[in-house]
Amino acid sequence: MAESTAGVLAQLREVLGESGVRDTPDDNLPDIILKPETTEQVSQVLKICSAAQQALVPLGGKTGLANGHFQTGSEFGLSLERMNAIEEIDPHNRTMTVQAGCILQVATEAAEEQGLLLPLDLGARGSATVGGNVATNAGGNMVIRYGMTRDMVLGLEVVLADGTVVTNLNKLLKNNTGYDLRQWFIGAEGTLGVITRVVFRLRPQPKSQNTALLAVDKFADVAALLHRLDSQTAGTLSAFEVMWPEFYEFVTREEGMHKAPLPHGSAHYVLVETQGSEPEADAERFENVLSDAMEAGLIADAVLTHSQAERNALWEIRDDVLGFFSLGPIVPFDISVTIDQMEPFVEDIRSAAARLDDSICVFFGHLGDSNLHVILGNREPANFDYEAIQELLYGTVEKYQGSVSAEHGIGLSKRDQLHRSRSDAELQLMVGLKQMLDPQNILNPNKIFTAAQIASA
Amino acid sequence: MAESTAGVLAQLREVLGESGVRDTPDDNLPDIILKPETTEQVSQVLKICSAAQQALVPLGGKTGLANGHFQTGSEFGLSLERMNAIEEIDPHNRTMTVQAGCILQVATEAAEEQGLLLPLDLGARGSATVGGNVATNAGGNMVIRYGMTRDMVLGLEVVLADGTVVTNLNKLLKNNTGYDLRQWFIGAEGTLGVITRVVFRLRPQPKSQNTALLAVDKFADVAALLHRLDSQTAGTLSAFEVMWPEFYEFVTREEGMHKAPLPHGSAHYVLVETQGSEPEADAERFENVLSDAMEAGLIADAVLTHSQAERNALWEIRDDVLGFFSLGPIVPFDISVTIDQMEPFVEDIRSAAARLDDSICVFFGHLGDSNLHVILGNREPANFDYEAIQELLYGTVEKYQGSVSAEHGIGLSKRDQLHRSRSDAELQLMVGLKQMLDPQNILNPNKIFTAAQIASA
Repeated sequence: MAESTAGVLAQLREVLGESGVRDTPDDNLPDIILKPETTEQVSQVLKICSAAQQALVPLGGKTGLANGHFQTGSEFGLSLERMNAIEEIDPHNRTMTVQAGCILQVATEAAEEQGLLLPLDLGARGSATVGGNVATNAGGNMVIRYGMTRDMVLGLEVVLADGTVVTNLNKLLKNNTGYDLRQWFIGAEGTLGVITRVVFRLRPQPKSQNTALLAVDKFADVAALLHRLDSQTAGTLSAFEVMWPEFYEFVTREEGMHKAPLPHGSAHYVLVETQGSEPEADAERFENVLSDAMEAGLIADAVLTHSQAERNALWEIRDDVLGFFSLGPIVPFDISVTIDQMEPFVEDIRSAAARLDDSICVFFGHLGDSNLHVILGNREPANFDYEAIQELLYGTVEKYQGSVSAEHGIGLSKRDQLHRSRSDAELQLMVGLKQMLDPQNILNPNKIFTAAQIASA
Repeated sequence: MAESTAGVLAQLREVLGESGVRDTPDDNLPDIILKPETTEQVSQVLKICSAAQQALVPLGGKTGLANGHFQTGSEFGLSLERMNAIEEIDPHNRTMTVQAGCILQVATEAAEEQGLLLPLDLGARGSATVGGNVATNAGGNMVIRYGMTRDMVLGLEVVLADGTVVTNLNKLLKNNTGYDLRQWFIGAEGTLGVITRVVFRLRPQPKSQNTALLAVDKFADVAALLHRLDSQTAGTLSAFEVMWPEFYEFVTREEGMHKAPLPHGSAHYVLVETQGSEPEADAERFENVLSDAMEAGLIADAVLTHSQAERNALWEIRDDVLGFFSLGPIVPFDISVTIDQMEPFVEDIRSAAARLDDSICVFFGHLGDSNLHVILGNREPANFDYEAIQELLYGTVEKYQGSVSAEHGIGLSKRDQLHRSRSDAELQLMVGLKQMLDPQNILNPNKIFTAAQIASA
């Protein structure tokens, strides 16, 4: 029998104090947010909530794009914001041990001060927490070189639904001792346990960055260029971002905020970057590789940056997604399709969108990772049909056997699309682990799976 | 009620034919080996064995060093050797789809023919299968740059204990669609499912290799050198192998097979290698980085290689582990300790070994991955005490909070040491997944966990 909410809150106040239990007015977030300061408090909160069958939404920076942090019923929020300490940066083993609530940018800057790199960078860096990054297996701008968050996590501390604390703050690169439990919780979006501490692998801070914007005439050349640069820049290629003209030409329009570094009219614009260890030699190599590719006919036009300001200006163009929201109601999508399927995929979406009234249809993405972002919508709100747009996009993803989520996760907003990328057998295995670790379904319920899916399995 | 063995064998012969069910005379391997040719046959075998509660040992190349392929009771062997096709090498997406029974070297050579790299290399390359490599999350010689097997697996097909086929031959680098099921089976040593097909991520084939052997006077310099080279060779450092004098001086002794490229008498010998894309410039950079490190006092002596033959000669020294077996009864160990703890760890083991009669005590390893190999034994067989040697080694690993298995897995031979590196809470979670996926404990029973551990959980 579940206890009364008032009774549960009284117990939680005893553990967390008055300041640890707060009301929030936000429409989408849980009404009540719990703010533990220690792993022990997280454990006690889970014991209380487990006994009372009180569901929880673990909260990081609340910047997730799949609404994994939304309230769906009477869940409390469990915010890790007060557990934000960087506990250790270990220069000998090149690791950082950090509490889950630490803001990503705080963590990356702390590494940088020690001459080290936490190679995770994404738009929400100033608000997202490292715990949220791990829980969603965040991607970002350097995946092509360093992998996703999963690839930089060496150790984890997790609190299970029943309050059990599982601590494995491993610093070893190689550790084949039984099942790799870390992997269960990375990317599970808070549905299997609450991540309280993380050990990250750090890398040497690069000493040089070389950045260019390239105009490319056709998609086959974009793909060839990716492989060519990957081969010729041995391990140093850190970004290969592609903008289709609908993106580039809008962001660099005359009345806009950004000057166009290359003229409009090309089929593709590619932002490439390498990170190396020898500033002079790296710059020379970068120019040589690009000029060879130009001679080979793969690049139609190029602009290289020669200062941090110029480099920032290129990245600001690539990052300026917000401007599209001024055009009308839009939906930004995050999907993957294999590189050989990307051109027909884009053409299919484009033609389907063209048949809608006054549609908005924009493509850009981390092409080196087979990850496309697509923006679909309408200039006139009256014509906007959210369901139709979703069906158009995800139906095409399914047709091309792509992924309905490349880097944003499933959360609430993609939950009903998950079957397009995962078989029944796979979904059943996932639900099995969920039932094993959270038999009462109190950890972020209704995310990834519906309660009915879990109950019927 | 379990069926009679004869009845089960009759059913299996019906599925696999006479040639698919063989007796084997090997002492350690299962007496009967099943040899399916298709995933569908694997599924049927598992259905039959599941119904009859007949346990199976999945078999790859039988080269594992933790005896995960041994028979422990009346298990049948399930060899994937006839499922050895390379189904596809996809140059657009740089992936290889391969059946589990393919020999590792066959797979790496097939990639090489397409100008691509499957960055997995280890001593058993000529016999080990890719399915075994995935099942054990094999490490090897390039982990410092490319990671372990886990890091190169994009997709998997697995057959569960009840015969369910779970196929996810994903080729996408980014795919955040629910729990990452691949990770459950990678490194699970055949205890959770039978891996039948794998999609590997391939990399560009490097165009240059630069290799050197360095003499270093003290361990602090070895650690400093690792960080210095890692920083100064931007993403191209592919090996950092350390030999202690007990290893190097024996392998390069006057009456032995290898000429000593550097004189005896140093505290450490380091084999370093980079893989790049510009042969001339890379060689120059490699020499510059090393000569700077020498000027900084980190390197006492060095020999650079100028041909593939010279390069091979260095690697043959590092790989010549077999010679130690001629000294007397020995046990080779594979463990990890953090780099800052490695020197006291080595000293502790050395002093303890010195207190034994006529002991053999040798250290070498993939230091860039915090992975040490230790050989312990006695010249006089009468003095050899396996239990005492294990206790000496693993007790010290536990004291230094190291890992009892860096890259070889747990299997049978490290099963009783697993508790030294994993907490009860972790072991309980592992057993939970085992029970969920293999409720009758028919998949590689007695490996990683005892039957009693599983039954009592």
